[in-house]
Amino acid sequence: MSILSELDSVKKELQEVLKEVSIVPIEWKDGKLRWIDVTSLPWEERYVESSDIYRVAEAIKRLEIRGAPAIGVTTALAVAMVAYNSPNNKDEMMKNIEKAVEILSHTRPTAYNLFWALNIMKKTFYESIDLSPQEIKEKLLSKALKIQIEDIKNNLKMGEIGEKLIQDGDTILTHCNTGSLATAGHGTALGVIKTAWKNGKKIKVIATETRPLLQGARLTAWELKKEGIPFKLITDNMVGIVMMKEMVHKVFVGADRILRTGHVINKIGTYGIAVLASYHKIPFYAVAPTSTFDLTTSPEDVIIENRDESEVTTVLNKLRIAPEGTSAYNFAFDMTPPELVSGIVTEKGIVEKDYESNIKKLFE
Amino acid sequence: MSILSELDSVKKELQEVLKEVSIVPIEWKDGKLRWIDVTSLPWEERYVESSDIYRVAEAIKRLEIRGAPAIGVTTALAVAMVAYNSPNNKDEMMKNIEKAVEILSHTRPTAYNLFWALNIMKKTFYESIDLSPQEIKEKLLSKALKIQIEDIKNNLKMGEIGEKLIQDGDTILTHCNTGSLATAGHGTALGVIKTAWKNGKKIKVIATETRPLLQGARLTAWELKKEGIPFKLITDNMVGIVMMKEMVHKVFVGADRILRTGHVINKIGTYGIAVLASYHKIPFYAVAPTSTFDLTTSPEDVIIENRDESEVTTVLNKLRIAPEGTSAYNFAFDMTPPELVSGIVTEKGIVEKDYESNIKKLFE
Repeated sequence: MSILSELDSVKKELQEVLKEVSIVPIEWKDGKLRWIDVTSLPWEERYVESSDIYRVAEAIKRLEIRGAPAIGVTTALAVAMVAYNSPNNKDEMMKNIEKAVEILSHTRPTAYNLFWALNIMKKTFYESIDLSPQEIKEKLLSKALKIQIEDIKNNLKMGEIGEKLIQDGDTILTHCNTGSLATAGHGTALGVIKTAWKNGKKIKVIATETRPLLQGARLTAWELKKEGIPFKLITDNMVGIVMMKEMVHKVFVGADRILRTGHVINKIGTYGIAVLASYHKIPFYAVAPTSTFDLTTSPEDVIIENRDESEVTTVLNKLRIAPEGTSAYNFAFDMTPPELVSGIVTEKGIVEKDYESNIKKLFE
Repeated sequence: MSILSELDSVKKELQEVLKEVSIVPIEWKDGKLRWIDVTSLPWEERYVESSDIYRVAEAIKRLEIRGAPAIGVTTALAVAMVAYNSPNNKDEMMKNIEKAVEILSHTRPTAYNLFWALNIMKKTFYESIDLSPQEIKEKLLSKALKIQIEDIKNNLKMGEIGEKLIQDGDTILTHCNTGSLATAGHGTALGVIKTAWKNGKKIKVIATETRPLLQGARLTAWELKKEGIPFKLITDNMVGIVMMKEMVHKVFVGADRILRTGHVINKIGTYGIAVLASYHKIPFYAVAPTSTFDLTTSPEDVIIENRDESEVTTVLNKLRIAPEGTSAYNFAFDMTPPELVSGIVTEKGIVEKDYESNIKKLFE
């Protein structure tokens, strides 16, 4: 099979897979990327198109594109884009790719999929180095689109695997946004919820608003409305009372990074929900593709991204809520220890305790 | 001692006590009430004066005046105001007072101090029924001002009692606002923090923003800045990570109602903080005057106020954060069971386990 026809068949497969998802957050548009700027939601649906690597990096940094899998897919497409738009000269192309890798790697330090995708794209480039410049471009684009396809397929698979944990009539609590807007489509934790709903289970969702950036209120609510799944929004500090009142049957969250020990690094607030779920004996599941697993870093070495304190002292930079000069902590993520995790749903199956040995098996 | 001179001496005592506090949220102004509208903070310091009972009730309902002790003091002063402005005719006065009681009792169902103050004022009225109308007015005003004095004195006393639990160098996590803006002055949990600071202990504070109405970000931050106490603001879902990182030594919260069993009903989110504190073995203290204790209601009979869902789907009605038509839960309070409470600081001393028997002793 020639490279060109490989790209054609990948593009065809992507078209097929995209039929399965209702919201497509990031797309390849003939040398450009097109994404939905999620910071504009729920007020408007704004799409951005750009072929500028700085603009794409800014989009990741500003959280126009966010969610570990979405960042991974965007990163791969962005590297392919830079190659695609380079002159047909391998030295120039290599320089541009290296620069793109450098720029992208400084956007979100906690996003493991970012580095996972960068490594795949670099590897693909150096493995193709003996091909013609045009062939390298096609190769990189094929690879990036395959990552996009794989992410959607993984999400659909995790949906089917994870939804078996859900009973008809369950109320599921979820945190942040882990839907189409956090992935290449469908979603991880929210994907499981969507699949359960599509499979006819009469479920309800409780979505935490997820301060400071309100991905729950803005994005999860937006997706749940689109899907027609009944839900209630709560502030983050209502998790305790809804659990005490026995209004929650299961918790499903996503993950930005999962360690070989089973530690789940995810959006700030996940850890508090896990402690509360454990206290109330409510099952707590993380949903993440194996690309999210980081088998080398130890829990004590994880870098938790500290973002600007203005995210806390304002609401979305639109409304100041604290006196001028107020100082704040802004930890963007936290780490949930494995003893609080009932199971991790992956595209290869559900991992349960003992995590260390079962995660090892998953990658054998 | 004549009634008139009793009122004079009460007024004089109030002037003395007010010297001890830096912020006076509610004041008697010759037939009117004057209060700081805390919904205007931190953007501006707006004071409202009114002699209209409907306006005062609205202020309580709209949370211009909030915090259990502040509501109690306002309620007492409002009943005194209605009597004061009535014609010198006991029937009219009684009608006006009964109407005021009716109006005020429908403002905040969870605020025990509201009903406590209403009962005291009704009792005072019916005990004075044989006096002249002018004497009744003076009697009721004396009583209300005494409640105000007592609240400030209690807060200063709880400050001294509670601050003994704080070590030099401690970082204290607190929730919502329990300072001058929640009481007649000084505060309950925040009062303990202020006293520790005034007594020279080098402490730091971590204040939760306290969604939905952001009393932590708006009011506690404002008070801590005024006092010069170093603090950091966090979103409510960062409590877990700051505890995991061992950045918190003790938790101090207020209470809207404390049951004879030791159950602490307080601002939404308190329960989650208590569970997290217990999980991390961090002492968790409630601070509340004995007027906050409800010795008759059982935990299962407590009414948790459900407020309008727009408080959750917007930020302070200034910024919509969820898609149009989003439905939300808005539990304004939660209940922390006694097993999670390390101690309750009152003006009569610190109550510890076993709460049921020790609370009984407190009232003997």
